[in-house]
Amino acid sequence: MNQSQYPSALLQKAVTEISRLPGIGSKTALRLALHLLKQDVVEVDALADSIKELRHNITYCKVCHNISDTDICEICSNSARDKATICVVENVRDVMAIEGTLQYKGVYHVLGGVISPMDGIGPADLEIESLVERVKQGGIDEVILALSPTMEGDTTNFFIYRKLQDTGVKISVIARGVAQNDELQYTDEVTLGRALAGRVPFKM
Amino acid sequence: MNQSQYPSALLQKAVTEISRLPGIGSKTALRLALHLLKQDVVEVDALADSIKELRHNITYCKVCHNISDTDICEICSNSARDKATICVVENVRDVMAIEGTLQYKGVYHVLGGVISPMDGIGPADLEIESLVERVKQGGIDEVILALSPTMEGDTTNFFIYRKLQDTGVKISVIARGVAQNDELQYTDEVTLGRALAGRVPFKM
Repeated sequence: MNQSQYPSALLQKAVTEISRLPGIGSKTALRLALHLLKQDVVEVDALADSIKELRHNITYCKVCHNISDTDICEICSNSARDKATICVVENVRDVMAIEGTLQYKGVYHVLGGVISPMDGIGPADLEIESLVERVKQGGIDEVILALSPTMEGDTTNFFIYRKLQDTGVKISVIARGVAQNDELQYTDEVTLGRALAGRVPFKM
Repeated sequence: MNQSQYPSALLQKAVTEISRLPGIGSKTALRLALHLLKQDVVEVDALADSIKELRHNITYCKVCHNISDTDICEICSNSARDKATICVVENVRDVMAIEGTLQYKGVYHVLGGVISPMDGIGPADLEIESLVERVKQGGIDEVILALSPTMEGDTTNFFIYRKLQDTGVKISVIARGVAQNDELQYTDEVTLGRALAGRVPFKM
């Protein structure tokens, strides 16, 4: 669509800004802009203000680097959580996913990404040094590596393992295998191979 | 995803606001919110401000009701356009689509929707009365109905036709038929039936 066809410079500007968001093209951006035009001013302001406030006022937990409204997040400041177990994750969405299982009672360390040379993300861009510091300060029994089983995740796992191996802390990695309800015939070879190699004694 | 799992009230608020947008669920909203957190403050402010400015400062052309930055839009104030031909469309996106053909030299009338009882949109919610007024003021040769060939579009066409039939203005409707590059075997029966019934003399 020709940019000069927009009937209004205000509309064009909003569409340009909205289409900068990932996964939103200019047609979707136009649809969203026209939708906003039909909404109450109060609602549109609420959206715009919530975005600004998020960006301006967000803080990160000084301990685990998760998004937080306070200096120390709710998980790190919860006395019921096991502070000796650290689960290393890529981002806040992974924290939310693990919290959703209601299975984990330890604390987290949010890296803020994974090592990805293709995207120009190296170890120094991530919260790896702060993890090493946290472990070296003592009181940690186990570090659980819970990154996605991708090439970047594996690279980051390996890098962290090398950094921590001399500290004597127990380092584990989440189990990889066939996902619940996946059909074996459609499971890829790597997953199936790893699931076979990583077989465990059967329990009832 | 449980709302209470958000690690920050600011994040939760932004996700709630973003997920009010049509076609954006809470997972996409979270992805967008986390993306915004990684962007420069300047860029996030530009997005939020462009949305606010769009909603607060937008005006509509007093003649054709298209979105405009001025009282009379660029098309209506362009002396090269044929003011005696009015193309009736649903919204600004249709104006942009027709302008994109570079085929049309008349002016527009933007209804702001189509009659849709299911969505609670009646004739009074649309710019139909202003169209009738515009035609009655004289100087109009032809009104081209260019609404989508849906039940709602057809209903609206019929309603406008009834309102204008006594004015003596020529009322036409855009051609319906098999779309360019569509394969006949995959064309639905209604379209194909109409295309047959509406056949025209072959021209080289």
